[in-house]
Amino acid sequence: MSPAAGNEASGAANRAASGMGKMIDLRSDTVTRPTEAMRAAMAAAPVGDDCYGDDPTVLELERRTAEILGKEAAMYVPTGTMSNQLALRAHTEPGDAVLIGPGAHIWFGEGGAPSPISGVVIRPLEGERGMFGAATLRAALNLDMGTVRARMQSPVRLVCAENTHNGAGGAVWPPDLLREMLDAAREAGLATHLDGARLWNATAATGIPEAEFAAGFDTVNVCFSKALGAPLGSALAGPAGLVERARRFKQLYGGGFRQAGIVAAGALYALEHHRGRLADDHARAKKLARGLAAINGLDVDVEGVETNIVRFRTTAVEAPMFAARCRGNGVMLNAYSQRDLRVIPHLHTTDDDVEAALDIFRAAAVV
Amino acid sequence: MSPAAGNEASGAANRAASGMGKMIDLRSDTVTRPTEAMRAAMAAAPVGDDCYGDDPTVLELERRTAEILGKEAAMYVPTGTMSNQLALRAHTEPGDAVLIGPGAHIWFGEGGAPSPISGVVIRPLEGERGMFGAATLRAALNLDMGTVRARMQSPVRLVCAENTHNGAGGAVWPPDLLREMLDAAREAGLATHLDGARLWNATAATGIPEAEFAAGFDTVNVCFSKALGAPLGSALAGPAGLVERARRFKQLYGGGFRQAGIVAAGALYALEHHRGRLADDHARAKKLARGLAAINGLDVDVEGVETNIVRFRTTAVEAPMFAARCRGNGVMLNAYSQRDLRVIPHLHTTDDDVEAALDIFRAAAVV
Amino acid sequence: MSPAAGNEASGAANRAASGMGKMIDLRSDTVTRPTEAMRAAMAAAPVGDDCYGDDPTVLELERRTAEILGKEAAMYVPTGTMSNQLALRAHTEPGDAVLIGPGAHIWFGEGGAPSPISGVVIRPLEGERGMFGAATLRAALNLDMGTVRARMQSPVRLVCAENTHNGAGGAVWPPDLLREMLDAAREAGLATHLDGARLWNATAATGIPEAEFAAGFDTVNVCFSKALGAPLGSALAGPAGLVERARRFKQLYGGGFRQAGIVAAGALYALEHHRGRLADDHARAKKLARGLAAINGLDVDVEGVETNIVRFRTTAVEAPMFAARCRGNGVMLNAYSQRDLRVIPHLHTTDDDVEAALDIFRAAAVV
Amino acid sequence: MSPAAGNEASGAANRAASGMGKMIDLRSDTVTRPTEAMRAAMAAAPVGDDCYGDDPTVLELERRTAEILGKEAAMYVPTGTMSNQLALRAHTEPGDAVLIGPGAHIWFGEGGAPSPISGVVIRPLEGERGMFGAATLRAALNLDMGTVRARMQSPVRLVCAENTHNGAGGAVWPPDLLREMLDAAREAGLATHLDGARLWNATAATGIPEAEFAAGFDTVNVCFSKALGAPLGSALAGPAGLVERARRFKQLYGGGFRQAGIVAAGALYALEHHRGRLADDHARAKKLARGLAAINGLDVDVEGVETNIVRFRTTAVEAPMFAARCRGNGVMLNAYSQRDLRVIPHLHTTDDDVEAALDIFRAAAVV
Repeated sequence: MSPAAGNEASGAANRAASGMGKMIDLRSDTVTRPTEAMRAAMAAAPVGDDCYGDDPTVLELERRTAEILGKEAAMYVPTGTMSNQLALRAHTEPGDAVLIGPGAHIWFGEGGAPSPISGVVIRPLEGERGMFGAATLRAALNLDMGTVRARMQSPVRLVCAENTHNGAGGAVWPPDLLREMLDAAREAGLATHLDGARLWNATAATGIPEAEFAAGFDTVNVCFSKALGAPLGSALAGPAGLVERARRFKQLYGGGFRQAGIVAAGALYALEHHRGRLADDHARAKKLARGLAAINGLDVDVEGVETNIVRFRTTAVEAPMFAARCRGNGVMLNAYSQRDLRVIPHLHTTDDDVEAALDIFRAAAVV
Repeated sequence: MSPAAGNEASGAANRAASGMGKMIDLRSDTVTRPTEAMRAAMAAAPVGDDCYGDDPTVLELERRTAEILGKEAAMYVPTGTMSNQLALRAHTEPGDAVLIGPGAHIWFGEGGAPSPISGVVIRPLEGERGMFGAATLRAALNLDMGTVRARMQSPVRLVCAENTHNGAGGAVWPPDLLREMLDAAREAGLATHLDGARLWNATAATGIPEAEFAAGFDTVNVCFSKALGAPLGSALAGPAGLVERARRFKQLYGGGFRQAGIVAAGALYALEHHRGRLADDHARAKKLARGLAAINGLDVDVEGVETNIVRFRTTAVEAPMFAARCRGNGVMLNAYSQRDLRVIPHLHTTDDDVEAALDIFRAAAVV
Repeated sequence: MSPAAGNEASGAANRAASGMGKMIDLRSDTVTRPTEAMRAAMAAAPVGDDCYGDDPTVLELERRTAEILGKEAAMYVPTGTMSNQLALRAHTEPGDAVLIGPGAHIWFGEGGAPSPISGVVIRPLEGERGMFGAATLRAALNLDMGTVRARMQSPVRLVCAENTHNGAGGAVWPPDLLREMLDAAREAGLATHLDGARLWNATAATGIPEAEFAAGFDTVNVCFSKALGAPLGSALAGPAGLVERARRFKQLYGGGFRQAGIVAAGALYALEHHRGRLADDHARAKKLARGLAAINGLDVDVEGVETNIVRFRTTAVEAPMFAARCRGNGVMLNAYSQRDLRVIPHLHTTDDDVEAALDIFRAAAVV
Repeated sequence: MSPAAGNEASGAANRAASGMGKMIDLRSDTVTRPTEAMRAAMAAAPVGDDCYGDDPTVLELERRTAEILGKEAAMYVPTGTMSNQLALRAHTEPGDAVLIGPGAHIWFGEGGAPSPISGVVIRPLEGERGMFGAATLRAALNLDMGTVRARMQSPVRLVCAENTHNGAGGAVWPPDLLREMLDAAREAGLATHLDGARLWNATAATGIPEAEFAAGFDTVNVCFSKALGAPLGSALAGPAGLVERARRFKQLYGGGFRQAGIVAAGALYALEHHRGRLADDHARAKKLARGLAAINGLDVDVEGVETNIVRFRTTAVEAPMFAARCRGNGVMLNAYSQRDLRVIPHLHTTDDDVEAALDIFRAAAVV
């Protein structure tokens, strides 16, 4: 058990305070509430007007994030959706094509934002567990058919990877696969963006530093409000010039918040104190997966659970019915189709919660 | 002096803490930092995941804001730009025309967002001090020239007013002018939006409740991060259906933040405790205006200063030079052109600050 | 041989005149040039300013097209891309989702236009030969997960079918499959659009009238410049109100041409005189397919050739190399990937051309 | 009288044929119908698929247009709106600002297209008769207020001029004013676009070659379907690279028409045979202006009529009523507001038409 275990008690208190009662909330790692220590850090944070570049806590969070990711600069924004979509906007212009792995959050989890925000053409690639290699990427590039035909095609400008991959159950890209894919992208003159909303989990699972996963990508999105447990916000890191270009779009898209240092302080705290405890979430996710695998009427790939996300399928009951039954008995989780569901343990999930949840799942899986 | 005077001391402490030294910052009322009491309220706030509708503090802020504005529902968002632009997006579709007063913040102060975000055609109206009446509005409607010609025109869908009007030096719309304009809009079947970023100041200056100014408008934007002194955030209020429609766009444009209750608690605190002190800002703005009027080489319309914004012109030195000199001597203010400048006293501005600033202005105005 | 056989001679003359020499051009049915009779019809056409609704030939073409398709109204536009994209624009608003079959021309053959033009989110469905049934459509609809989750999703507004299906080698939708799919769409409250660029070929192949294929769709695009052999232009047919709405967007997107009756006369001529000869193209396509199937190093699904498009693959040489060799020997055709090619016989393709082309293919397929 | 006078007879025949009866149509110079000679040229034109770059007549029109305008390349498109809007699209990206003179057709006459198509921010400049000089342009550039403030502004990328200026009654830019404005634009690093829809008229009125007016602009739009009398189409001329970039957008926006050589032949004919007769239109416009000035209840600036457009105001009757009365008596013209109207003599307008129209105006102006 990590030294951050005390958080979970305060998490429980929070839960009561927020009117959620005794619910075990496994919908997402976005549901975490700040710990007492994080609240204290926010209450004491020096702040300024971030639109004027005057907020010292935001500046420090941006500096520290860039440092961890090995990038020149970073920009704090209200959400991961804004961070990813600003990256797309900054790398492209309308009519450009963007290559993206199967089931990418940027395309399927952000309201389809690439179309209305950037006007880009998404070309989804095929691949296992949301990943793809150099060969897939090369095959997706425009066939050289001369100037005339090129006029009818969208020029490919950007390739995006997601690590860990939410839709693929928190899967981690093997470093070799990443490297060969990035080499092919560089050869083709493409820009590269990493949706690292849960990059912290990739590092916790493999011991490979975040900067190593981020190396070779032009830009990286990381989220402080998911497994790290900060109240809100994400950051886009990359070359200083490109981040400055994205700052203008941040303002225009309504992300130019003012004394953001209050919440940035929570993110800074999480960065320093919560990365170390992610292994606990991973252990509990594995325990959940094993428990689910033992339940009749549920189907889960235990080996595939590498980080904090457990995706599984119902084979008897329909998934929305399963989720409704669980909620009635005290566990919240999300259904994604008539058969697919997901649970994510997090900062407030205890070992007892895991046991209790499995009992409830067992009862709900019966026809 | 209002009971919130203690804030100013903590403001000064904050100023030092944030590295701004002894600077008197009159650039905007957006530069305010939270008071100790506001920080305490934020530290104690119950929170949840706002994307799931689970944040009790956000829900309470939205309820209270709707109540004050006399609207059915309200939605908390990171910035006033997002609030205004979501209103435009929710009321229109690309190719529609929007009527807007001269110098409107929505058009000139938000990065030109209506074009890239909503694809709408802005038709700026003429008028005094950012305002316009029924006759101006009617004249701007499409002349009925039959079906064929109509195909070449953008249909007018929405009219926007700004109250108080930033570009016009914080001017307050006379209620009668508002009413006749809104009647004409209703007759023409137009939707109506009020950019009430500083509506609190209109109420403080006139005693007319916010809900009375908001009556007749379909939607209203109010900001908590300007004169009210909350760290960040604005709200869009209006009919429940339209606000729900805007919630989807909020998510898509990257405004779906998570445990936003932390900062919403600051906004709630400001709503209850800082509206009453705005009269102090107005008195100091008037004092600044009178002082500026007495300085050779500066030109200011003292009568036009109705709330907390003082716009003035240099007649000798160029405005950017004037601003640079002032900054060198300890006062920050914004130049808008070779001749135009603005000062805004706020939560942290003391009577002594006003005197000190005027001395510095006097010295800077000399050729 | 159809009575329009004389066209082919004039086609040959045209070919010489246009500097294409003796090339057999099988790249597309878009390469056809007007026949002498069609040229005469264009030269004599009464015209007017179409932006004012004054062009009698355009009006007649629109009336006749609507009649053939069994729709209330139709609108003549410069291209099929504009016709399809105006349909998407008129049925949706940015952020809406559009369901579309695999390999759809609207998504893959029009420069990715749905994103920059309409800001819609394309959700490609799976299916055989570009088609999909009711079950696939229902499974793609948003799972009802309550109001909160719905905010994060794009609402599905429109489903598009393509008939015949270009990417699937000119395949014709079985009427029963169409009907069940349209029933499911209606149940779900979705709008429906048919990309019938080559709907004429579906009718020629099956004897089922165009109006019967079009029944149940809200809007239909048909092209006059493909197999029909008119110089340019397409039409969007549907309910009068929706077509009127699309007229405004036509103007805005630069489609409001003036005395378009000149070219509309070619389309009218084609409508009356060239639909009957499409069976000849289909017979030649079948002959080409059979010939290709007999060549070592080429792979073609002869049964799948139902209309005028023959898609095939190279198994020995790479496709761009194969295409280059053929061009050197007098046959033009398009490569789509390292392995995929396409030939389309048309108005100017004679039986001799088919024989000559097969000889050239035979030589080019050898490693 | 020019040698093209014979056209007017055929124009009359056309008029009858098109069902317009004896109407004198002064709504616009876009209403002209092709002459017999132009029809013959179109009927004989060699054509090919313009999307493949194979149409010899389109290629010749593009070559000749570029030559006349002194530019490297040109691209034929269906309309002037498409030509202008593709220029905006090619020079900018969404969020950029475009400076434009008062009453510009690009902003007010093209359905507000710059917003939904290019997402650009229009900053209308002030000036006399639609024109503006170097000082106005410089004053409109962003004040340099440091990096931070720049993030809140749209970067100015492009300045557009219109010559002749439709909204200003066909006014011609004085070459000196153009030159100083273009020098200021170059200094500021701005791209420049000339909306020369009626540039031919500027040349006819002044004797200054089109290329001289076009010199200094990066791109130029010219229309063949206005005073020149071709049935449809415009061209965008400029540097080869930029025109190639615009070709991709042409395809995407639905402008990639096929055997466009048919109508391009009309444009080529007009280019060679109708530029010389524009002086006749100008003489008739002057005669109309003088006649209108002599009518009680009408107000016209006779001196301001430099080319083929006559704008005038009613002082007694309302303009839509005036236009309706005229139509009832055989003259068609457009009202633009409750007071503003416009007449444009053209290819089909005879001296007798001018006399007859003035008689009808006289009767219609009486209260």
